[in-house]
Amino acid sequence: MTRRAADNIIAKTGAISFIKNAAKEGLKMNETLRTISERYSCRAYDGRLPEKNLLDAIALAAVQSPSGMNRQPWRIVVITDKAFIDEMDGEGMRILSEADDQTAYERFVERGGKLYYGAPCMFLVLQRPGAGADAAIVSENIALAASSLGLGNVICGMASIPFGGPRGEEFKRRAKFSDGWEFGTSVLVGCASAQGKPHAPDMTKIEYAD
Amino acid sequence: MTRRAADNIIAKTGAISFIKNAAKEGLKMNETLRTISERYSCRAYDGRLPEKNLLDAIALAAVQSPSGMNRQPWRIVVITDKAFIDEMDGEGMRILSEADDQTAYERFVERGGKLYYGAPCMFLVLQRPGAGADAAIVSENIALAASSLGLGNVICGMASIPFGGPRGEEFKRRAKFSDGWEFGTSVLVGCASAQGKPHAPDMTKIEYAD
Repeated sequence: MTRRAADNIIAKTGAISFIKNAAKEGLKMNETLRTISERYSCRAYDGRLPEKNLLDAIALAAVQSPSGMNRQPWRIVVITDKAFIDEMDGEGMRILSEADDQTAYERFVERGGKLYYGAPCMFLVLQRPGAGADAAIVSENIALAASSLGLGNVICGMASIPFGGPRGEEFKRRAKFSDGWEFGTSVLVGCASAQGKPHAPDMTKIEYAD
Repeated sequence: MTRRAADNIIAKTGAISFIKNAAKEGLKMNETLRTISERYSCRAYDGRLPEKNLLDAIALAAVQSPSGMNRQPWRIVVITDKAFIDEMDGEGMRILSEADDQTAYERFVERGGKLYYGAPCMFLVLQRPGAGADAAIVSENIALAASSLGLGNVICGMASIPFGGPRGEEFKRRAKFSDGWEFGTSVLVGCASAQGKPHAPDMTKIEYAD
């Protein structure tokens, strides 16, 4: 399929139809590509904790990530204590409410007033200092693994906020931080309370040098 | 499956068998999880350029990545000009050979003397300054999409070397850099000349806080 053909499909039918039409027009599709194309950032959870064997599968996908020089500069802490997540959520919102710049606070208030959207599980990715790219890759493996299992998920860098506040040391202890490890990123995972939509792929961001 | 059960399987059978046994013991498995578990960093290519519809599918997966605030702070340049890739490879190796620290140079010499392992295609991820985590996520989507299509791939941050050398401006022009965009990361993609193995997942890096 040519770029022009791709652009035409998007213009005529929108991004989701693009996926379907692209497959018809010979663009390769398989379950992994489908997972990638259907993943979206879920910001509404019904509160139910997914089964343990699903969380195990996601955690395994996390530690199967590639890393620079295969250093695997990460640790994964699967937080399933809803009361703890809610405590961090409340403290994070309190910190945001007192920030000089109210943009982030207002965005979360508009979205329901929850920093973690009521998710029952947080995959916390701890990293060695400077290993942000490696941690980011882990977060995508977690997101795709969760999506493939039908679970809502969203990569959430804002999860760092309560760890940087006055109760930070307490939260770090409870979240199993240890010496030499810092917050990398997090992925919230749970059962979506409403089906969301992936963002439209912007095909103008693709060029060939051939 | 408990952590102890997982550790026992790994101790007895190794990582690959772990995947198979884990599935038997109730750990969830599907095609996406299988792609994640079988992905490995490919450092040997036979030089054949994959079909264009495969490259299109990988590029689409790239621009379907999540990003902070959905800013999509990336551009994807698919370089399929083997002569250009080889020129950058030669210049990169020359720069490494003159570095004070010879560690990297010697590693590439041991691996065959090629910075890009003879790969016929480079997915270059350009980024807005500071968007390294977003670019890293894109690189994993590219790697998994390529793996799902049976193509060898390796995330290659070292691809930056020739862009930072004396011929850097020329290479940037040919690789379609433009104002406000910088090297993010790259993924080499091609037909593997030998089947490689994924790294062993380190289950000790997973903990639960429940």
